[in-house]
Amino acid sequence: MSDPAPNPVVVLVRPQLGENIGKAARAMLNFGLTEMRLVTPRDGWPNPSAGPAASGADIVLERAKVYDSVADATADCAQVYATTVRKRGVTKPVVTPAEAATEIHAQAGRCAILFGPERSGLETEDVALARKIVTVPINPEFGSLNLAQAVILVAYEWSKGRDLAQPPLTDLDPPAPQDELEGLIAHFDKLLEGSGYYFPPARVPATKLTLRNVLTKPSWTAQELRTLRGVLSALEGRKAHRG
Amino acid sequence: MSDPAPNPVVVLVRPQLGENIGKAARAMLNFGLTEMRLVTPRDGWPNPSAGPAASGADIVLERAKVYDSVADATADCAQVYATTVRKRGVTKPVVTPAEAATEIHAQAGRCAILFGPERSGLETEDVALARKIVTVPINPEFGSLNLAQAVILVAYEWSKGRDLAQPPLTDLDPPAPQDELEGLIAHFDKLLEGSGYYFPPARVPATKLTLRNVLTKPSWTAQELRTLRGVLSALEGRKAHRG
Repeated sequence: MSDPAPNPVVVLVRPQLGENIGKAARAMLNFGLTEMRLVTPRDGWPNPSAGPAASGADIVLERAKVYDSVADATADCAQVYATTVRKRGVTKPVVTPAEAATEIHAQAGRCAILFGPERSGLETEDVALARKIVTVPINPEFGSLNLAQAVILVAYEWSKGRDLAQPPLTDLDPPAPQDELEGLIAHFDKLLEGSGYYFPPARVPATKLTLRNVLTKPSWTAQELRTLRGVLSALEGRKAHRG
Repeated sequence: MSDPAPNPVVVLVRPQLGENIGKAARAMLNFGLTEMRLVTPRDGWPNPSAGPAASGADIVLERAKVYDSVADATADCAQVYATTVRKRGVTKPVVTPAEAATEIHAQAGRCAILFGPERSGLETEDVALARKIVTVPINPEFGSLNLAQAVILVAYEWSKGRDLAQPPLTDLDPPAPQDELEGLIAHFDKLLEGSGYYFPPARVPATKLTLRNVLTKPSWTAQELRTLRGVLSALEGRKAHRG
């Protein structure tokens, strides 16, 4: 295949049934995806129910890795998509699976696609880590996609572009890996502690979430993140100098 | 809906398990398809296993009609597609689900899409009734689509051509006006003056340009800009407090 971008990673966040992990693996391999990551699967890993449901997609299950958090599971990813049903109050761009697939093929870095637990879907905190949201346009009067169905639609759309993928935009640097973005957020956080910004205490989680969403939006490159870290260090240094 | 063509009919040919009929109904209704036809279902009809697997798509099962032959089930259809895996010796046009969907939307008459039994798929005689073949492009080293998955991919593609299927973006605010962005940049500038960041003097114009580019990239909304202005004011306040 001529696709220059690395294949995306499918991240199952707190999956419940081993059977559904197996079905998701089958869905992935049908369309050529092999890298699955599991964030704290409810029943541990490996799970004996996964294999039979995978119908032969054993290679995906064998290579699956377990992580303690979504942040760890996406640390090396340049772009993170959260798959959700339609939500209110979303402050991130919402794309269809087809649009996400086009972007993933054009992206120089590795992409991660998050899928939530069977019953509840992704939490707000999970979505906050992502830069964009993927929503399958669905019958407004009957939306009942299960985990494996959501995975298969996203994988199917991705597989379409494999041969036809546009050449990468080599002039553009990819977005920085997720852990570098986390570094920026942590730096802001450290600097703002004790500044009076985090007030009142009851509002702190919401305030931090808002700030995180603002900083996650831009898809800054590693170089751009370094610039901002330099800005923060300068402000920090001034404080030390004067403090 | 602006679609002039009648919605296509999903024809399950000799389906075996009631559970799979239910799953196919669920897959259909997710993407707005409601007309299912059953050709000699193995275990008769109605089938008590179908309902639970349909997860609420009861209307599809209630309206399902049973036929003695594929010919009967498609008698009123202007165009018949047979869904198969890639086969040798095929003498009919083969289209992808996306191509079939485009054709179905452009077709004035009613279309039928045939799906074969779980294990064996459609027989040569069934395919012979169809005018075209629909094949899902799949991993050549691992092709393992079950009945409901084949149905969902075809239904999903068909739904794309409908107006209401697009996710609205009304939750997203537009980027802030340019003068508000300038306000943010000026605020950064003011805060960084005297922090040691703008050094050496000869580099100041280039440094300011870099910072401007970083801050211009995100297309932040007015609300997001206010969040960032709040952050800067907090840092400024701390400076005033300590200075």
